[in-house]
Amino acid sequence: MKYFTHTYRVIYGDVDSMKVAYYANYLRWFEIGRTELIRDLGLPYAEIEARGYLLPVTEAYCKYVKPARYDEKLLIQTGVKFVRKVSMRFDYRILNQENELLVEGYTVHACLDKDGKFARLPEPLFDLLNKWD
Amino acid sequence: MKYFTHTYRVIYGDVDSMKVAYYANYLRWFEIGRTELIRDLGLPYAEIEARGYLLPVTEAYCKYVKPARYDEKLLIQTGVKFVRKVSMRFDYRILNQENELLVEGYTVHACLDKDGKFARLPEPLFDLLNKWD
Amino acid sequence: MKYFTHTYRVIYGDVDSMKVAYYANYLRWFEIGRTELIRDLGLPYAEIEARGYLLPVTEAYCKYVKPARYDEKLLIQTGVKFVRKVSMRFDYRILNQENELLVEGYTVHACLDKDGKFARLPEPLFDLLNKWD
Amino acid sequence: MKYFTHTYRVIYGDVDSMKVAYYANYLRWFEIGRTELIRDLGLPYAEIEARGYLLPVTEAYCKYVKPARYDEKLLIQTGVKFVRKVSMRFDYRILNQENELLVEGYTVHACLDKDGKFARLPEPLFDLLNKWD
Repeated sequence: MKYFTHTYRVIYGDVDSMKVAYYANYLRWFEIGRTELIRDLGLPYAEIEARGYLLPVTEAYCKYVKPARYDEKLLIQTGVKFVRKVSMRFDYRILNQENELLVEGYTVHACLDKDGKFARLPEPLFDLLNKWD
Repeated sequence: MKYFTHTYRVIYGDVDSMKVAYYANYLRWFEIGRTELIRDLGLPYAEIEARGYLLPVTEAYCKYVKPARYDEKLLIQTGVKFVRKVSMRFDYRILNQENELLVEGYTVHACLDKDGKFARLPEPLFDLLNKWD
Repeated sequence: MKYFTHTYRVIYGDVDSMKVAYYANYLRWFEIGRTELIRDLGLPYAEIEARGYLLPVTEAYCKYVKPARYDEKLLIQTGVKFVRKVSMRFDYRILNQENELLVEGYTVHACLDKDGKFARLPEPLFDLLNKWD
Repeated sequence: MKYFTHTYRVIYGDVDSMKVAYYANYLRWFEIGRTELIRDLGLPYAEIEARGYLLPVTEAYCKYVKPARYDEKLLIQTGVKFVRKVSMRFDYRILNQENELLVEGYTVHACLDKDGKFARLPEPLFDLLNKWD
């Protein structure tokens, strides 16, 4: 799988005790990863919404291998596992500067229209993600 | 000043290193305090919004006296400092179970209508807060 | 599975756009669920740590069925899926007041000693969770 | 006052309803601002802690002028208001890409040693911040 890499610096607000990241925060970093991947493809998520589509998360999974520490600069790697008519899945790997795997996981998203009904992914997004895969 | 008291249990997601609460989280607890005070008065904030009003925060202040610790059950005390035509101020005190003061602070709120313009506080809210004061 | 129920009121700080809960926050609520279940069993997590054990999350999974809305009072239901020598799994269901399922998921935890090595779950916790199961 | 500028992109996890940033999150961004200013001076906060000092926040203030919106790239500007023997104050301004002021505020910090007692700011930090001021 091809990954898009974005960096993030861990702040105090992200860690819990022992200065390691709180387990829910990795989902925030997954959001940063997929948002920046989509922006890099040329179709920012804000624009997808402006066109009347929502891509809510329907599933999320994290495997915690090694904790991210305070002030570490993380590598958030995001790839496209699959893209279907009304859904898609992103896979993530979070690494530290020594290239050690800290967390891996995925999110599955539905595509909804303004009325909250399942909708086909907008053409350009579907094509862009499909080429990535 | 008369205070309304609500309790909150500190979780891991709230603390940073050394198992003490991250400084931004007290503003979350201030929100809980004023929301529960208003609910107790009989006019939930969700209803105020349903009537077409917003009460955005325009100022917030915190003085940190002693840290809140993991798993402590906090007392969030909220009072009404003033209520004016288009603004109001809530004062807060956060105490631990030994009644020690951990944090005190305040938030100032404007009253806006649906178009984002200053509006007079809805009558019942104005009266209810005024009586409290 | 037997579930322990704890309630939580959704605040503004928990929602994102459209006043529905941000997807990472459900993991915060899973933490509240398992902490209160363990407290109810008579062995608060803070005490487990005081005895020299840590129960870090090694896996987390969420399935998002229906969004939690601002000011909703949620039911967090937590059960024990399995408890083994050095690991355990909690299952969660989050419901609204109409008893509709909003989210279900699980967390897997390892048991570590102070040096970060796998350790057998402390006797009383193992027994208490085992009986629950 | 001289300001150090760092950028931050607003994510979904930062906003509440109407896709504007939740008021507590500006304190997270203040943390990012002062951390990056200190790093830029050549003395990362992690190193200050490694030398046995803590700089806990004793006061925080925010004035909310205009909301930060989803996906906006913010400019976090941080300056040094004063630096004294055992305390210091940072001032902050958060602007959008059109250079409009969204929030301004400050944080006051004490300097403590490992035992939690007031301590003189470590020499290099005192000098570096003093020159900045």
